[in-house]
Amino acid sequence: MQTIVINKSMVEKHLTMKDAIEAVETAYGEFSAGKTQMPPKKYMYYEKGDLRTMPATFNERGMTGVKVVNVHPENRRIGLPTVMAVIELVDMETGFPIAIIDGTSVTNMRTGAASGVATKWLARKDSETVAFVGAGVQAWLAWLAIKEVMTPKFVHIWSRTLETSERLKKDIIDEGYTGEVHVFTDLQASLYDADIITTTTPSRTPIVKKEWVKKGAHINAIGADAKGKQELETELTASSLVFIDEWEQASHSGEINVPHKAGLIEEMHMTPIGEVINDTAAGRVLDDEITIFDSTGLGLQDIITAWMVYDKVRHMKDVQRIDLLA
Amino acid sequence: MQTIVINKSMVEKHLTMKDAIEAVETAYGEFSAGKTQMPPKKYMYYEKGDLRTMPATFNERGMTGVKVVNVHPENRRIGLPTVMAVIELVDMETGFPIAIIDGTSVTNMRTGAASGVATKWLARKDSETVAFVGAGVQAWLAWLAIKEVMTPKFVHIWSRTLETSERLKKDIIDEGYTGEVHVFTDLQASLYDADIITTTTPSRTPIVKKEWVKKGAHINAIGADAKGKQELETELTASSLVFIDEWEQASHSGEINVPHKAGLIEEMHMTPIGEVINDTAAGRVLDDEITIFDSTGLGLQDIITAWMVYDKVRHMKDVQRIDLLA
Repeated sequence: MQTIVINKSMVEKHLTMKDAIEAVETAYGEFSAGKTQMPPKKYMYYEKGDLRTMPATFNERGMTGVKVVNVHPENRRIGLPTVMAVIELVDMETGFPIAIIDGTSVTNMRTGAASGVATKWLARKDSETVAFVGAGVQAWLAWLAIKEVMTPKFVHIWSRTLETSERLKKDIIDEGYTGEVHVFTDLQASLYDADIITTTTPSRTPIVKKEWVKKGAHINAIGADAKGKQELETELTASSLVFIDEWEQASHSGEINVPHKAGLIEEMHMTPIGEVINDTAAGRVLDDEITIFDSTGLGLQDIITAWMVYDKVRHMKDVQRIDLLA
Repeated sequence: MQTIVINKSMVEKHLTMKDAIEAVETAYGEFSAGKTQMPPKKYMYYEKGDLRTMPATFNERGMTGVKVVNVHPENRRIGLPTVMAVIELVDMETGFPIAIIDGTSVTNMRTGAASGVATKWLARKDSETVAFVGAGVQAWLAWLAIKEVMTPKFVHIWSRTLETSERLKKDIIDEGYTGEVHVFTDLQASLYDADIITTTTPSRTPIVKKEWVKKGAHINAIGADAKGKQELETELTASSLVFIDEWEQASHSGEINVPHKAGLIEEMHMTPIGEVINDTAAGRVLDDEITIFDSTGLGLQDIITAWMVYDKVRHMKDVQRIDLLA
């Protein structure tokens, strides 16, 4: 038996954002329906970064595997990605390692897709203006996902460096978007009239103020991924409808970790997005409510998204195969 | 940057039992010295088996990685190994996945090596007779390890099936051993005068009785690897000097898990073998004590053993390389 190797370009070639959105939606839904296994993410710490081990299983779909992913912020200086991941998929029937997959590209896609899923289920149907706070790769992928689930008329971009914002604007236009795209140097101005806001900064002090966000907006809070990180003012989070992917991760490292630790926001006030998808809990009820999705990233998203690629390429002739047991 | 792939035959070609013993001894020692990280093993459960995720790091040596390993008892019927593992080694400086290694062969070697390390540190120096209870692959690998650390004069073999015992006898002789090898159909008889006993059965009821074990014997208890498994009578364990690799695993799934749950044996009565190696705790004190090593298998053993192979083959021309990030 051979193990299939799927590298970055294979993932990019065969995984569409539409696929990834479908995969992530399924992951959230099955998680909330209790049809999955996902032991807590485990961390190992190094001088310059860390390594996270994320096992996940879809019991009924027969999909199982483990993602191993690092975060090394200084990698940029030497031209390596900050985050590099490997996903191993395992045959549930025998335990055989059926595939080794570049997890970097899968992680990017499933993280972008999360914004698409949340926007689809939580944003107002008449949303027109899409704002990005932070304009790096995550903003780009969120854009690809959001435009799959609605039709934006205006795009607002703000980030700390103008070049980054301009590059995102160029990418959006080059890819064929024909609506208006504006780059802002003032964050408050960029949020004016924004219906959908996606924040992807590594901020440790809240940068989005409650008074800047219009009634009825939906916010995808993507940036916070560690203790102490927070992009939205606590007043904003505490007065909005908050949706999470998973409580343990959200309370430890998600957007809500700081207000939760301060005792200002409790689990009972937050709804797992999977319950909205499964129709076992309400999503947005009123048009003038603000909804926030706190995305922390689940191993389940990685495994199902990787499996989708695996299913597409497994019979292809030009897929690389290795023989670990030989 | 490329990821090296090391398959089973490469591991077997380049990893000697001597290497593995050195690696495992270092793993135990550094673990007890607090120089390692080893988040708890995480399990996912399937209808026909399970999958374990085992991350481990040697902080000062710069070695880190994750083993993913299954146990599927029914695999034998379809000609697949019961246990198949993949080890990913990671560059601590950047988080890059530097190697994907067949973990099946590494697991076998490091598990065998554990018996060598324990025998070296705990058995009487004048030991002559080596007994095996259970005669499968694990017994064979324990044999290879034990003969690295002492000179056996007599080998006794017992297992539930005569064919298995006879095959182990043949393998031992074929490999060049010139002492006496005897196969027994009676377990008690096989233990007569045994100085070193290695048990590798999956028994759930104790099969080795206290009265059958001679004073001064050393026992490597390898078989128990899950809740409810036990090879040695509780009376034997409770009256012997017990050494463990790691307390959490031992108390949950090692040889001592049943007597511990019954409240018959406590952590304070057990010594981590790493402390004996580091000379911070006593090993055997008297010649007529019985010593027992409860081996559960640490992720640290896997990572350091795999790294040893990686270091040997990394510059070789004929090593397979894959380009995950391409």
